[in-house]
Amino acid sequence: PKPQRFILKTKGSHPNLILTQEGVVKIKKHLGTIPIFDSSLEIVKKEVDNEIKNGIEVPVPKHYSGGYTHERHKKNYITMQKAGVLFQILNDDVYANYVKQMLFEYAKLYPTLPVHPKTRSYARGKLFWQCLNDSNWLVYTSQAYDCIYNFLSKNEREILEQELFKPFANFISIENPQFFNRVHNHSTWGSVAVGMMALVMDDDTLLNRALYGIKNLKIDPTLKDNDGGFINKHGKAGFFANLEDPFSPDGYYTEGPYYQRYASYPFLVFAQALQNKKPELEVFKFKDSVLIKSVNALLNLSNAKGEFFLLNDAQKGMSYHTSALVSAVDIAYHFGEQNPELLSIAKQQNRVSLNDAGLTVAMGIKAGKEQPFIKKSIELSDGSNGKQGAVGVLRSKDLELVFKYTAHGLSHGHFDKLSFALFDNGEEVVQDYGLARFVNIEQKGGGNYLKENTTFAKQTIAHNTVVQNKVSHFQGAYEIASKHHSNAYVFSADSDAIKVASAKEFNAYSNTKLHRTMALITLEEDTNPIVLDIFRVESSNKNQYDLPLYYLGQIMQTSFKYSKLDTPEVLGTNNGYQHLYKEAIATSNGENIKFNWLHSNRFYTYTALTSKNDNIIMARIGANDPDYNLRNDPCLIIRKKDTENALFLSVLESHGTYSPVSEIANNAYSNLKDIRVLCNNNDYTAVEFTLINNTQKLFIMSNSSSNLNRTHQLTIKSVKYQWEGAYTLINLNT
Amino acid sequence: PKPQRFILKTKGSHPNLILTQEGVVKIKKHLGTIPIFDSSLEIVKKEVDNEIKNGIEVPVPKHYSGGYTHERHKKNYITMQKAGVLFQILNDDVYANYVKQMLFEYAKLYPTLPVHPKTRSYARGKLFWQCLNDSNWLVYTSQAYDCIYNFLSKNEREILEQELFKPFANFISIENPQFFNRVHNHSTWGSVAVGMMALVMDDDTLLNRALYGIKNLKIDPTLKDNDGGFINKHGKAGFFANLEDPFSPDGYYTEGPYYQRYASYPFLVFAQALQNKKPELEVFKFKDSVLIKSVNALLNLSNAKGEFFLLNDAQKGMSYHTSALVSAVDIAYHFGEQNPELLSIAKQQNRVSLNDAGLTVAMGIKAGKEQPFIKKSIELSDGSNGKQGAVGVLRSKDLELVFKYTAHGLSHGHFDKLSFALFDNGEEVVQDYGLARFVNIEQKGGGNYLKENTTFAKQTIAHNTVVQNKVSHFQGAYEIASKHHSNAYVFSADSDAIKVASAKEFNAYSNTKLHRTMALITLEEDTNPIVLDIFRVESSNKNQYDLPLYYLGQIMQTSFKYSKLDTPEVLGTNNGYQHLYKEAIATSNGENIKFNWLHSNRFYTYTALTSKNDNIIMARIGANDPDYNLRNDPCLIIRKKDTENALFLSVLESHGTYSPVSEIANNAYSNLKDIRVLCNNNDYTAVEFTLINNTQKLFIMSNSSSNLNRTHQLTIKSVKYQWEGAYTLINLNT
Ligand SMILES: [Ca+2]
Ligand SMILES: [Ca+2]
Ligand SMILES: [Ca+2]
Ligand SMILES: [Mg+2]
Ligand SMILES: [Mg+2]
Ligand SMILES: [Mg+2]
Ligand SMILES: [Mg+2]
Repeated sequence: PKPQRFILKTKGSHPNLILTQEGVVKIKKHLGTIPIFDSSLEIVKKEVDNEIKNGIEVPVPKHYSGGYTHERHKKNYITMQKAGVLFQILNDDVYANYVKQMLFEYAKLYPTLPVHPKTRSYARGKLFWQCLNDSNWLVYTSQAYDCIYNFLSKNEREILEQELFKPFANFISIENPQFFNRVHNHSTWGSVAVGMMALVMDDDTLLNRALYGIKNLKIDPTLKDNDGGFINKHGKAGFFANLEDPFSPDGYYTEGPYYQRYASYPFLVFAQALQNKKPELEVFKFKDSVLIKSVNALLNLSNAKGEFFLLNDAQKGMSYHTSALVSAVDIAYHFGEQNPELLSIAKQQNRVSLNDAGLTVAMGIKAGKEQPFIKKSIELSDGSNGKQGAVGVLRSKDLELVFKYTAHGLSHGHFDKLSFALFDNGEEVVQDYGLARFVNIEQKGGGNYLKENTTFAKQTIAHNTVVQNKVSHFQGAYEIASKHHSNAYVFSADSDAIKVASAKEFNAYSNTKLHRTMALITLEEDTNPIVLDIFRVESSNKNQYDLPLYYLGQIMQTSFKYSKLDTPEVLGTNNGYQHLYKEAIATSNGENIKFNWLHSNRFYTYTALTSKNDNIIMARIGANDPDYNLRNDPCLIIRKKDTENALFLSVLESHGTYSPVSEIANNAYSNLKDIRVLCNNNDYTAVEFTLINNTQKLFIMSNSSSNLNRTHQLTIKSVKYQWEGAYTLINLNT
Repeated sequence: PKPQRFILKTKGSHPNLILTQEGVVKIKKHLGTIPIFDSSLEIVKKEVDNEIKNGIEVPVPKHYSGGYTHERHKKNYITMQKAGVLFQILNDDVYANYVKQMLFEYAKLYPTLPVHPKTRSYARGKLFWQCLNDSNWLVYTSQAYDCIYNFLSKNEREILEQELFKPFANFISIENPQFFNRVHNHSTWGSVAVGMMALVMDDDTLLNRALYGIKNLKIDPTLKDNDGGFINKHGKAGFFANLEDPFSPDGYYTEGPYYQRYASYPFLVFAQALQNKKPELEVFKFKDSVLIKSVNALLNLSNAKGEFFLLNDAQKGMSYHTSALVSAVDIAYHFGEQNPELLSIAKQQNRVSLNDAGLTVAMGIKAGKEQPFIKKSIELSDGSNGKQGAVGVLRSKDLELVFKYTAHGLSHGHFDKLSFALFDNGEEVVQDYGLARFVNIEQKGGGNYLKENTTFAKQTIAHNTVVQNKVSHFQGAYEIASKHHSNAYVFSADSDAIKVASAKEFNAYSNTKLHRTMALITLEEDTNPIVLDIFRVESSNKNQYDLPLYYLGQIMQTSFKYSKLDTPEVLGTNNGYQHLYKEAIATSNGENIKFNWLHSNRFYTYTALTSKNDNIIMARIGANDPDYNLRNDPCLIIRKKDTENALFLSVLESHGTYSPVSEIANNAYSNLKDIRVLCNNNDYTAVEFTLINNTQKLFIMSNSSSNLNRTHQLTIKSVKYQWEGAYTLINLNT
């Protein structure tokens, strides 16, 4: 909708934000008969009762995240929100009084507070070290206030609104425009915080500010935040701008799934509130229902355990079991098209939100409507117009391949064009390092980003993609990276036998073009598909190219002889190389190299084409890490020197298993005898696979036409091959 | 029983070894009505049917373990045993014919075989590279033969016995006395192999050889096997000697639980056969029912996940879910006193043996007789007389502390006197490295022991115990180590508030006495107990002492400043030190050091008393490891230099948790403000704990009297303390 000023028309009486009066009636009616709702309620009640027993603490703010006052205020807002809900559902004044007392403690404290004593943030809060966390507080507290609104006298409400809520909302918006008036997950929280409280207070000035930003504000477009992200390059602001801009039409959030998870709570909970109080805005239909699509996109960006893929800054282990996703799934079901697959996710989450949406989900589960959520091979476009690259996910049997050819991803982006990661039955096998941070663990730099996030985790060499001349993509410069994106080339995943994703990157290095094609190909029945990787590099200059493979596990065997150094040496001086130890080296004799390892009781082999005198470097993370901030994980690097064009061709196999209980190793060795390239030019790349059992297959990729209907002809070794589409897989034995 | 020659009195007709005729009748009667038996049968049937479909393969022996012919012959004997059982239970000739055909293939092949082509073993087999595996084959095959005995004609039996079974039994006994005539898990298998087949064939010559060894044989007592173990120092041999010698009266097997698990199958399955065919031997009553006790001991030597503690050579992940333990538990239940706790283990195993014992267990489970198997704090004596030290296991809440003060443990022993390991909720937190081997993974040295097992895994510095002057206990010499054992001093675990294990070692170093006391002490309600570690070293010489802590996880914070080296340096030249990298160093200022880390989403802190100028070394395994045979795990070493006596005093806490899903860190810091020693001499050691909340407790240990009834008096800082027993815990705040 276009920016407009409106008069709030209050729909119903309180609660009417997240819980509604109608919802409360319905919940009370079904109480005790819907198992997953009842057990969710029981858990929340226990938690809140315990907090009530411990007594109210509203300390003077002092610490970073992980520290006492930070965690206490966080616990407070979470508990207030829950206590408000319990008051509505259980009709017990104990809960209302708890919220009321705590709010009055805050109303007493807040006006006395200067800005938070910790200085690290570009936008310091009052209760917390950054406005972001103050916004979290207001998003939750507004719900608590809504729930006890009618329990309070008019006079009490007056005090809270004047002393606490309005100054609070103004502080995180007008007094911190560099935080509030931008497009970023921070300002999403800011807008939603102000907007939620505006809806409860029926304050249209605040609501308009929340929806459309602070008007007539000029922010220096070159300003940056703590993460090195631009504050506001384009002058966009407010909730709708934050919804319009970072989501692609497919619902992919440009910062990646870890931050989408974080932002999804304010996005969806505010949408829920707007739908309840301002249905005429039709927020769930905005941008072709992008909010509902975004939940589906996010669920598809998780591995078999439900853990989100590591794209950009992302902490390992975050999954759709997190509370933000419980809300998200419930809201997407209730306000979306009641997709029965979402119910199976809710069932895995094993709890629902204690509101209208959660009740709908709980009743859907009780009625047995759920269907399995089947994660598919999927390409999710990036960019608000969907034209700034994409993430491609290929899935087959236990394998999940994540291939990244997106835009930079705002301030949380990594210099990782055309990088990939591989999961096998939910276990990371070829990893993306993720972030260098221990979120909310105070011992580690206050729980905030560590310097190694910039010096290592974001750098190209920390990723499974090509590094030219030991310099990161876009020279590691956010300003340059933000101007560009990779280009999706082919995504084709309809066949069980072969699924292909291919993408090109022309801007990471000037004068050099990168083109990577990844495929899951079933070469033999009853075996896992192989992961084919064709990484073509074309340059007008002679360069050195490194391609790391961040395998996880223990080396079992290599086909090549390597020399372990007596003591490790540091691999370089900057761009992330300063954090890698060189442990062993080898020089290729020009044949395929095979690298066989064991991880989590499965055997893997990496088979790579090499050229004579390519270097093979066995490295490990951990150099120049004075505080043990990094994990000491290994990687294998293939280095090609002094060459204009290069072809990195390789196959990854998950071929065997080991049981420490039966001590039996099954299929411990690769099934591949040989891979070779029969043709590689601007038009085609043709790869021949020879299996141990001597069956042979040929894969041909068109490098210049992605058209899936075009007919191609190619003659290799006097044999003419003809096919339709951008690629083909040919059985050479028939 | 004393050695005697007897005449076999066949009890019943075949099968009468493991399955009995009466058992088969009973099984058939209940078939389809006992869920766990039926599902176990279903799994076995599927497996065997699949093998029958694949066809019989009896290749000429060629490979080490992990290799094709090794794994094929292994699969063959396992499948024959199962097919024999299926024939009896299902009455389907397909199974009998399968066994028969395969046996005749072996009868054709065996007489043509020279000794196995792989030369690594001190006792090469014919089907396998070592007689050990040939013995495995015979133990299983004898059962298969028993099951189809009556299906074969007399003439067919004659051929198999003359061409295959008797030569086979003679080869692994008379032709390999260095393998057969000893006390060792190898010869247990050998004796049982010969004995089982003897029982089926009613061959009393072989049976007597199996039970009492080859008579009038002289073996050079200085001969050693591949592991460096003596072949036969004392001239003992045969099944009963193997049962008498390595088991303590508590059922602890001197080689440790990993090898006990391996040996338990032949021990128990042969006992079962003897009980069926020679009940007059009363084998289950032998040595005060040591076989039944041994199963209970073994189950108690597993962590919360059922994985065996790592004592001596042991591969991680081996657990009571292994098939040998399914047999063991079933046999212990059926032939023992039908302990209902065993049923809960069987239920976790989720399968039973397809014989009389398994049926009894299955029926017990069906009848709901099971009770939880509660693992207790327990001290298990070592040595056939129970007087060669012990293993102490202290358990409280999620913590399991394993403290080792045993004899050496034969050829699989490590030089690890007074070492310990700590598990928390089944996760290793302070590890024993285990063995340096990848069992049956051919890529890694044929699946056999790697040289790093000797050069690192067995060495003292690879363990959480004191190393003097960088030399392993007993100079790393098996001959010396085998003559000695540690001494149990105090084991007291009846109180929930405090559990203590204490032991002394006087022989690991000449002129130096080691005394370690470990305790689980609950200092505060609602928190985990702390692990107190008092390691006293007394010497008449000045020495250097190193105490490593093999923590697992990521360093969060240290109270001391350390300097990371630019590149790691190798820590030493021999005795295992050559495999450690020094990564960082610190020098103590004489105060407590605190070392805080995160592992598997729990926070731990190690608080240690230090003296000024003690060195603190942060090290990592992996140096001089040319084939990546070692895991690159970290350790922290406290080094005291140039001192006669030393006190290593420390506390381990499991105090907090982290959730990557909620991103909340709970109790991330130690609860201890200070530990100090108020007294430390030959009579007493007194340790004062001060908690963050300023409560103080005092622990006093008597170093010279372990009597639990004696009254002690001690004055510290003018306060007189009086107590009864070897130790006391005093609350200083009351
Ligand atoms: Ca940030
Ligand atoms: Ca490839
Ligand atoms: Ca051995
Ligand atoms: Mg990354
Ligand atoms: Mg960035
Ligand atoms: Mg050990
Ligand atoms: Mg030994």
